[in-house]
Amino acid sequence: MTASDNLYLALIHHPVYNINGEVIASAVSNLDLHDISRAAKTYGIEAFYVVTPLEDQRKLVERIVSHWTEGAGAKYNPDRCEALRLIKMAVSLEDVRDDIASNGGGAPATVVTDARPHARSISYDTLAEMIKGEHPYLLVFGTAWGLTREFIDKADYVLAPIMGRSGYNHLSVRSAAAIVLDRLLGKET
Amino acid sequence: MTASDNLYLALIHHPVYNINGEVIASAVSNLDLHDISRAAKTYGIEAFYVVTPLEDQRKLVERIVSHWTEGAGAKYNPDRCEALRLIKMAVSLEDVRDDIASNGGGAPATVVTDARPHARSISYDTLAEMIKGEHPYLLVFGTAWGLTREFIDKADYVLAPIMGRSGYNHLSVRSAAAIVLDRLLGKET
Repeated sequence: MTASDNLYLALIHHPVYNINGEVIASAVSNLDLHDISRAAKTYGIEAFYVVTPLEDQRKLVERIVSHWTEGAGAKYNPDRCEALRLIKMAVSLEDVRDDIASNGGGAPATVVTDARPHARSISYDTLAEMIKGEHPYLLVFGTAWGLTREFIDKADYVLAPIMGRSGYNHLSVRSAAAIVLDRLLGKET
Repeated sequence: MTASDNLYLALIHHPVYNINGEVIASAVSNLDLHDISRAAKTYGIEAFYVVTPLEDQRKLVERIVSHWTEGAGAKYNPDRCEALRLIKMAVSLEDVRDDIASNGGGAPATVVTDARPHARSISYDTLAEMIKGEHPYLLVFGTAWGLTREFIDKADYVLAPIMGRSGYNHLSVRSAAAIVLDRLLGKET
């Protein structure tokens, strides 16, 4: 068993903020599905949950995923098929926790990522050690202008923000997910 | 002076392979511009060159960039404006080298990134040390199915591929650029 065997990802579309700080359900982005599932596959993640309460959005995701995993896309690009197979749909975070618990290893500890610093943030090294055990962990990413404060407060852990060199911290969720996975699971070659 | 002061990025749209191994000029992707410029801004990169020989593609990029840096987009989202200002257009790699040389620090050493391993690959730690000096470096990323072998052979250095945990190495160029910048310039917080 390796660290990535018990690690799961979730991409949350509600509750998140819009540019005005209002709580919304964001639209699913096709590129989020592709980029994050490819990164998840690269780092050996168990499953990538796309979470939205909106039924039409879940149907859209299912159509995209089935194109690449069963339809013409699977023949055209088998590598893409392998990545998009990691995607599972969920209505809510509770739904994700229940699905992971049904694997028999218990409910996962939730670790939210956020571009803002939090008093209780844990470091990448700390989390990298934690995920080496048997217990499942769920890494949670927000879309749009980020997860709501209340949602973050309910998580078991908050991961430190990615700080670069400039004070500017407005990475796309696709870039942030790639960097977080590499910091936790990447090996120098 | 810090490591990122002499580091430049280029995204190459020709010569790259398509899915059948033919040499093409790929189409510019709007999301590449946004995601890579945001990552470049986060890590304090000097400039992000979008390189294509196709004039209509360069015009398209200029329209997108001016929307976000001068048009309605700049008012709507000033953070995006700050990132997209890093974008410069170029016809070829030679053009990029000349532009960087015109800053007075000499022509940059070129460092190509590739998903395949190469006999002369250098490690991230080695490159992280090299870029701490005064000499400018240009990190080169390919689009589509990657830079051609001949193009890679002409580069001064080749960076080791990003290997995850699974043998699967089909990251998007957006994810790869984010991870490479973090490995070279990221600091644990």
